[in-house]
Amino acid sequence: MIIGMQQSGAEKHVFGHNYVDHLDFLLRSVNRDRPKVVAFESIKSMDGDRAPMVELCSVVKKHNALVYVDEAHTVAMYEPEGAGLAAQLGVADQVDILMGTFAKGYGTAGGYIVGADAVLDAIRSFAPAFIFTLAMPPSLAAALTSVRHLRHCNEERRQLNARAAQLRARFHQAGIPMVCDQSHIVPVLVGDPHHCKQLADTLLIEHAMYVQPINFPSVARGTERLRVNPSPVHHPDEVGRFADAVDLVWTQLGLPRTRHSTVAERTLLETR
Amino acid sequence: MIIGMQQSGAEKHVFGHNYVDHLDFLLRSVNRDRPKVVAFESIKSMDGDRAPMVELCSVVKKHNALVYVDEAHTVAMYEPEGAGLAAQLGVADQVDILMGTFAKGYGTAGGYIVGADAVLDAIRSFAPAFIFTLAMPPSLAAALTSVRHLRHCNEERRQLNARAAQLRARFHQAGIPMVCDQSHIVPVLVGDPHHCKQLADTLLIEHAMYVQPINFPSVARGTERLRVNPSPVHHPDEVGRFADAVDLVWTQLGLPRTRHSTVAERTLLETR
Repeated sequence: MIIGMQQSGAEKHVFGHNYVDHLDFLLRSVNRDRPKVVAFESIKSMDGDRAPMVELCSVVKKHNALVYVDEAHTVAMYEPEGAGLAAQLGVADQVDILMGTFAKGYGTAGGYIVGADAVLDAIRSFAPAFIFTLAMPPSLAAALTSVRHLRHCNEERRQLNARAAQLRARFHQAGIPMVCDQSHIVPVLVGDPHHCKQLADTLLIEHAMYVQPINFPSVARGTERLRVNPSPVHHPDEVGRFADAVDLVWTQLGLPRTRHSTVAERTLLETR
Repeated sequence: MIIGMQQSGAEKHVFGHNYVDHLDFLLRSVNRDRPKVVAFESIKSMDGDRAPMVELCSVVKKHNALVYVDEAHTVAMYEPEGAGLAAQLGVADQVDILMGTFAKGYGTAGGYIVGADAVLDAIRSFAPAFIFTLAMPPSLAAALTSVRHLRHCNEERRQLNARAAQLRARFHQAGIPMVCDQSHIVPVLVGDPHHCKQLADTLLIEHAMYVQPINFPSVARGTERLRVNPSPVHHPDEVGRFADAVDLVWTQLGLPRTRHSTVAERTLLETR
């Protein structure tokens, strides 16, 4: 999204993350007849919080703009058919351009754009990332099988949600702070880059568990985190052992505990 | 390469395509101690012409600069081991950063960078295209098997060269102009965007043969072309039937024939 905006040369305004009134305010300042695209993620990659899509789409449409939504973190994973959060919330018909991936939930690589023919033609004709990328190789045809399977089978989605809920409950209980607890993305808030790296290194070396430490510039300073993504094929015992290991290393490193991580705390941290 | 340069914010100079003396002239204008990277393709994607790598590397090193070479169109395909044109020409040790692909010759997707640890660390830490791309999925592990096979087996490379030579000879004989005839890329020069599209459409609809028409902005206006890439698994009869079909449609569309397409003609066309 960022490179696309840069390359378009179009005027750009940034609205506060999922802040509907701010978006409304910004759109009011632009002429109604001027072409506009409002772009956002349905679930934010680093926090895992859900966009208020119904409200966002309503404001965008009120101002005669187009909706571009990045559903990379929802496709395959959200009921009913894995089509994304817009479909789950019943606002898919208000989304003008939907971007999904065949990586992450579908387990292969590549991705797709859904939209009107004219939009797709424009992207095919002008997007360097499309033009200079080769066709998908046969080994990625597996993506189609993934899509077909996950369209009608909810078992993996149920298991994913169950594992994420188990992990979040365990962290809550142990006072391990989370940036947000709204989705399958479980971001453990460390709040310091050195401790974050140390925590990940110790989990790998002493417990043979790999999880990515996320530091600035991927996230704001002071919100350094482990971005944990349980998967449907993790056994509940594995989730338990992972939580135990985080708990243990958390104590070894003398990291602070909390009762709960709230949205208010998160907002405070992000505005540091 | 282009997006990397844009995003770096570094000063940029463009040297004439494979024009060694011009590169020398430009490098002389920059302070010797200033960090510099000279980037080029070993085989140009749209023309298929070979870079004079020995001469280019020699000039770059003389001016204390780094060599970045895009070997996307050579890895897997050039003897002895498929490591690229620099390896074939014996100048691999002068290349500081080599970019290869697992698509094209290796038949899967993704790619790689070869260089010093410090360079690779910098790319891992700062390249958005790397940071925001997921790990390769298991179905792309096939890339490793491709690399292992093509490192020691020259059969596919011999067949690729034989098919390309057959096609080029046939086009030469029929007076079908080519932009360049130095590699496995056989670019048929049409020189007009509408004829180029019409030629590709007719080949698809009437002969069930798919080949991509390449128009501006992928190539300069006046150099519109069919970019033909024979493959080792094409049978000589298939190559023959394809050449016959191009020959036939060429006549149907009343396109001009030539004796030879020379580098001089190509340069003339590209500077229009």
